[in-house]
Amino acid sequence: VDALALKRDLERSCHAARAAARVLAATGRADKDRALLAIAERLVSDAPALLRANQVDLEAARAAGLTEAAQDRLRLDEARIAAMAEAVRQVAGFDDPVGEIAGMRRRPNGLLVGQARIPLGVVLMIYEARPNVTVDAAALCLKSGNAVLLRGGKEAARSNEALGQLVRSAVASVGLPEDAVQVIAPLGRDETRVLVGLQGLIDLVIPRGGEGLIRFVAEHARVPVIQHYKGVCHLYVDESADLTMALALVDNGKLQRPGVCNALECLLVHERVAEPLLREVALLPGLSIVGDAATLAVVPAASLATADDYGREFLAPTLAVRVVASLDAALDHIAQYGSNHTEAICTSAYPNAQRFLREVDASMVLVNASTRFNDGGELGLGAEIGISTTKLHAYGPMGLESLTALKWVAYGEGQIRS
Amino acid sequence: VDALALKRDLERSCHAARAAARVLAATGRADKDRALLAIAERLVSDAPALLRANQVDLEAARAAGLTEAAQDRLRLDEARIAAMAEAVRQVAGFDDPVGEIAGMRRRPNGLLVGQARIPLGVVLMIYEARPNVTVDAAALCLKSGNAVLLRGGKEAARSNEALGQLVRSAVASVGLPEDAVQVIAPLGRDETRVLVGLQGLIDLVIPRGGEGLIRFVAEHARVPVIQHYKGVCHLYVDESADLTMALALVDNGKLQRPGVCNALECLLVHERVAEPLLREVALLPGLSIVGDAATLAVVPAASLATADDYGREFLAPTLAVRVVASLDAALDHIAQYGSNHTEAICTSAYPNAQRFLREVDASMVLVNASTRFNDGGELGLGAEIGISTTKLHAYGPMGLESLTALKWVAYGEGQIRS
Repeated sequence: VDALALKRDLERSCHAARAAARVLAATGRADKDRALLAIAERLVSDAPALLRANQVDLEAARAAGLTEAAQDRLRLDEARIAAMAEAVRQVAGFDDPVGEIAGMRRRPNGLLVGQARIPLGVVLMIYEARPNVTVDAAALCLKSGNAVLLRGGKEAARSNEALGQLVRSAVASVGLPEDAVQVIAPLGRDETRVLVGLQGLIDLVIPRGGEGLIRFVAEHARVPVIQHYKGVCHLYVDESADLTMALALVDNGKLQRPGVCNALECLLVHERVAEPLLREVALLPGLSIVGDAATLAVVPAASLATADDYGREFLAPTLAVRVVASLDAALDHIAQYGSNHTEAICTSAYPNAQRFLREVDASMVLVNASTRFNDGGELGLGAEIGISTTKLHAYGPMGLESLTALKWVAYGEGQIRS
Repeated sequence: VDALALKRDLERSCHAARAAARVLAATGRADKDRALLAIAERLVSDAPALLRANQVDLEAARAAGLTEAAQDRLRLDEARIAAMAEAVRQVAGFDDPVGEIAGMRRRPNGLLVGQARIPLGVVLMIYEARPNVTVDAAALCLKSGNAVLLRGGKEAARSNEALGQLVRSAVASVGLPEDAVQVIAPLGRDETRVLVGLQGLIDLVIPRGGEGLIRFVAEHARVPVIQHYKGVCHLYVDESADLTMALALVDNGKLQRPGVCNALECLLVHERVAEPLLREVALLPGLSIVGDAATLAVVPAASLATADDYGREFLAPTLAVRVVASLDAALDHIAQYGSNHTEAICTSAYPNAQRFLREVDASMVLVNASTRFNDGGELGLGAEIGISTTKLHAYGPMGLESLTALKWVAYGEGQIRS
């Protein structure tokens, strides 16, 4: 009975979201931007109430023995709230993706056809501790005309509830339906399982968090899911590479921010340049290396890589290294161990650059640039609602446009089909 | 043990398909077109063998008591084989969607970024009796650089097997991997269930057939599925409509080919023009009408519509009719009963046309044109691999481009992130 009641409640939320989505889809940019600016204002003016709600979460987190890092991710303060407000104001400044009509052309019978950009409908975000995702996702979904259901982590339940109420009242204050944004109380994994099974009621699920969360969602989903497992990013340094550049790309890729998904995890180096390059790589401060026998011959301080070290996302200043005999060997390694996230080559040879760009299957493939550039902001998308490492619907960082679809439109003068 | 062996076999097929897909992704247009032309040639030269295989299916179909219509769908003859060959030749003539780089732009740091069109990888087609789908799907997937697994219906097993062998040997004859095209023996629904669960091995499932088949696939899939349930298409005739045009749109939409998904199922007519229009509609030869009380007041011969008649796909020369008081009422009716397939308005009022185009959520929305135009050929897509009535990845008829995705590419000169 409880399970049935839960399902009924969640279905009711979805129906309310769908009704709100229908209104939002027909709402122009000016009204959507007014809602966003109202959210930004209230974030600042209601900061004390938000901090009180966050305090309750933080105390529970401490009592439950969460790590310092986890507590920090959960924490709100004046500066973080101001940053959230600023991010919402930036979304207000972005172009509205909805309404553009692409590829308008006249068919031989005179029918004028094109593809109009429209919102997806109802988006479900499932995410872990950071409360700023609540506001970021709400802002991006509103701007793109979508209703959103926000299912955050248990640890941030009070903070997310307070943020959700704030956003809803800001949306209502400009005359838009508050059910466009709904925070779902995180009771366990039950409501997640029910939600992702609501075929026809939810148009897209975007899970953000650890691999376990994403696999759980993918396993139970009966609606489309954006999948982003891990980022096992490679840099292949070709025999023709500028080794000074290659060293800078290793340093930046691996050490600038080792804990993120576009950080470098594995260096593949052509055997003809392995010795000079690896000697320099070994000197990078704070870096530890796990490599194959050829690597150890140059860098005796490195550890021997185990089978698991290739294809591993270290999320730490540890770099896997493998010496390869050719571009083909590098391409094979990446096909076997890559995660379809980000792959780069450092080369001066035009045919190798072109071949790498063409043959590597990843959401971003770079020549002579750091893997760290696979990021919505760096690519000019504005903000990111997620990253997809599968090719369906989106591949790579997802901006506002990824929250839309194209429908066919036709302007006729009575055309019938013969 | 049997189930395990089946799963192992199907996984082996997928791995072979993935290896072939990697080769195909790097194959240029000339080689892909040579494979297509080889298929077309062999279809004609091997017609006698194909007809013998088809004869075995036809005899089994007769023995099993399949309807005449089902037997006809299954039947191959010289003319149908020639038409299949011609369709493959046409695909050879289409532009190659792979390789295009869209939206190339230079970022402030000098990095040149864009999005390159790439194949999806491995596509699984699940379909019912018509054997021509085997060849059409193989041709479209080859052209777009995808490997394809073809799981046809039991009734066409021998025909599909013969067609698959023919296609594979044609592909091999030009030096491409024959495992790019594999016909999966239809044993029951077991292998379908296993196949659609092979996450990471199959990139997209396209089921074509009845609603039962599509629901079965959606229920068991752990990989993305193109969903196309039914086409419940409406025409709303506004009070400002040209009634001669409106009558032609009803006639064409409903009667030109009643059994297809873009046929008209329901006419919504503004109360101010209901009488003159419905009087003419009632005279359309062969049409039967189910309508509301207001319809019956004009057309006494019509039957009273039951609750189920709205939202029904008749697939027959039967038209549901409802008299409405306003555009708003028509929009509400479509939002409630539509199937997100095709919706049309007949109007002379500019604001009503614009509002209908903007607010109706369907894969195609038309003004003053027949619903029958929602078709890949009519829209200039060349050929159709399927139709999507959900917004993810594709919405509406899917041509070659729908079998591709975009990956980010970047041309750098040593850029690192600061």
